[in-house]
Amino acid sequence: MPLVRIDIPSDTPSATVRQVADLVHKALVSSLNIPVADRFQTITRRASDEMVCAEEFLGIAHSPNVLVIQIVLAPRNGELKKALFSAIATEIADHTPFKAQDVIINLIETAKENWSFGNGIAQFA
Amino acid sequence: MPLVRIDIPSDTPSATVRQVADLVHKALVSSLNIPVADRFQTITRRASDEMVCAEEFLGIAHSPNVLVIQIVLAPRNGELKKALFSAIATEIADHTPFKAQDVIINLIETAKENWSFGNGIAQFA
Amino acid sequence: MPLVRIDIPSDTPSATVRQVADLVHKALVSSLNIPVADRFQTITRRASDEMVCAEEFLGIAHSPNVLVIQIVLAPRNGELKKALFSAIATEIADHTPFKAQDVIINLIETAKENWSFGNGIAQFA
Repeated sequence: MPLVRIDIPSDTPSATVRQVADLVHKALVSSLNIPVADRFQTITRRASDEMVCAEEFLGIAHSPNVLVIQIVLAPRNGELKKALFSAIATEIADHTPFKAQDVIINLIETAKENWSFGNGIAQFA
Repeated sequence: MPLVRIDIPSDTPSATVRQVADLVHKALVSSLNIPVADRFQTITRRASDEMVCAEEFLGIAHSPNVLVIQIVLAPRNGELKKALFSAIATEIADHTPFKAQDVIINLIETAKENWSFGNGIAQFA
Repeated sequence: MPLVRIDIPSDTPSATVRQVADLVHKALVSSLNIPVADRFQTITRRASDEMVCAEEFLGIAHSPNVLVIQIVLAPRNGELKKALFSAIATEIADHTPFKAQDVIINLIETAKENWSFGNGIAQFA
């Protein structure tokens, strides 16, 4: 059910782009226990002037090589969301050239009845 | 008031892209009874590696030729939202090469006061 | 904490694109009193067939030269949101070729715990 929108610098190699998308999905599966098959993602390659991020915010420095990951999902409790943030940043920092400090994540929670996964039916209503 | 974001494969002919956008709007008008003039849409053409969708989820198979339609709108009741999903998928399947099973829809509900349609005024506050 | 998504016509000069992004941020700082360093924006250049806006809605005419500004932010009261709309439209109309009537704004409010600004931590949870 999550819809994941990943914004990634346009000079990222295609293999790394795919890896980031795979790792975000892996983190969703491991932390929220969603089905592996529940994968819906869009990826936007951004030129350097199409993504503006704070150089430093809350004491965290951001390089120009930043990721913005927006996830629309059904409501979850705070502990699960913390686990999700941690899993995404850890997976990405461990397996790609992106640094944990450059992983920006935003969640938008929306009711289960607000989704159709085909055939014009609200499968979770 | 809805803001509609349509993600569509980049090899879709421009006439079909426009048709999909028109049909989504037609479905919003017919099912939610919004004014015809209330049309605000963005369309993103996606290369095949910029849109990842489950090959099968909830028993519904998805081809690579998938549409992701995200609609930000004022809150509606469940019956209206079901009617909207059905109208969008039916219009698209009936009039374009896209199949009903490949129409993924997500709604984000946000208060009426969260919109400005010009001149810096919250017209519905 | 806001995540700002700006959709702008693709024939806009790059200097104007940057100016619009700067002015939206300036308006957020002045009206909501967010820190100057709290800046996270994506900018999407749209071909004319990738952004469809009502020619006239609520008595406001829209030219083809329209901006769609979507801001995901923590909940704010109605007065602050009105001030934000006004500040964005005024700044843009005063300092760029875009007209106040062509500034479309949508807010999505999401809890403070729904953000991570790096290192996989929910800094405001």
